[in-house]
Amino acid sequence: MTHLKSTFLSREPLASQEAKWKRLVKTNYIDPNGVKRDWESAERQTRPTDSSVDGVNIVAFLNKKNGSEILLEKQYRPPIDQVVIELPAGLIDAGETIEQTAVRELKEETGYIGVADKTTGIMYNDPGFCNANFHMVYVQVDMSLPENQNPKPDLEDNEFIECFTLPVSELSAELQKLESEGYAIDARVGSIAEGIEIAKRFKL
Amino acid sequence: MTHLKSTFLSREPLASQEAKWKRLVKTNYIDPNGVKRDWESAERQTRPTDSSVDGVNIVAFLNKKNGSEILLEKQYRPPIDQVVIELPAGLIDAGETIEQTAVRELKEETGYIGVADKTTGIMYNDPGFCNANFHMVYVQVDMSLPENQNPKPDLEDNEFIECFTLPVSELSAELQKLESEGYAIDARVGSIAEGIEIAKRFKL
Repeated sequence: MTHLKSTFLSREPLASQEAKWKRLVKTNYIDPNGVKRDWESAERQTRPTDSSVDGVNIVAFLNKKNGSEILLEKQYRPPIDQVVIELPAGLIDAGETIEQTAVRELKEETGYIGVADKTTGIMYNDPGFCNANFHMVYVQVDMSLPENQNPKPDLEDNEFIECFTLPVSELSAELQKLESEGYAIDARVGSIAEGIEIAKRFKL
Repeated sequence: MTHLKSTFLSREPLASQEAKWKRLVKTNYIDPNGVKRDWESAERQTRPTDSSVDGVNIVAFLNKKNGSEILLEKQYRPPIDQVVIELPAGLIDAGETIEQTAVRELKEETGYIGVADKTTGIMYNDPGFCNANFHMVYVQVDMSLPENQNPKPDLEDNEFIECFTLPVSELSAELQKLESEGYAIDARVGSIAEGIEIAKRFKL
């Protein structure tokens, strides 16, 4: 993972008036017993005003001769100072549909051209802590297309992403192996892997 | 869902010095090209100093005569002003093992007594946004035990939680139905449901 690893320098408290991308908010509400309460949480400042979601997580299947593989990314994440195994993902732009966001972000982050074929409902990352949410979009990548033979990401100058694939059936075991090698595991891909294991356990 | 629904009053910006439970931080780092950068993120202020995780998400199976069911919760979450379908979950107390946290939180939130039988690695909810993380713990609930015949939660006075179960095989379809009825879906349980659907699709 060496070429992806950034060097952590320091972490410091951030005053609300200096924050550009995130913010703290307080929600005032009345509980079911009629008691007035408040609750602290965090938000992104980037959600378009015409959108009820922040963005997408992309479950991209590379359909190869020997079976389907799921496309994942390795990316250094400063909040936890680790390289994380995660789904391709991105924030929605104003005016985009969810499926347009998914296809655009997949192309930008991985170079692959795909077709969105399923969009889930809205999922909330951690709704006691923040309002961050997304649609999960399934994208099929046709590996016979000339554009997908030598895909080239179009990364911004602060993005350092390495793509790789894992066989769907081995997702859980491979994530465990990657964690033992020092990578962190994103909850979305980790929970999908657990769902696959649960389905195997119950022979669904 | 009426008896769980709180009444939203207002939401306001929260100054860092007034926040007791959450905080904003800035991480300074050097990217792989040697460029000095910073990154804003959010954190809980509650993580014990001797712990590298915030808490647990609990996948509890109620083993009934007609098959296993997964135990879920309905809970109003002020950050999104919705009642959310989520896994039982909780924050770790200082000195606890992960499994002790899982069994204790399950008892407190649902009344059920269970045995932890699998603990995953650490999962990060949204590592570009925050450091929030957890272990997923599987807990088996023996429905033949006298203690599990009429389970009574031990909720704090600001907790309003309703427990219910879903058949594992129908998780995705049932979550879609709940979303159509106005409930929000937590990403951990939503992603597990997607993993089950992926396993079915690929006949794993």
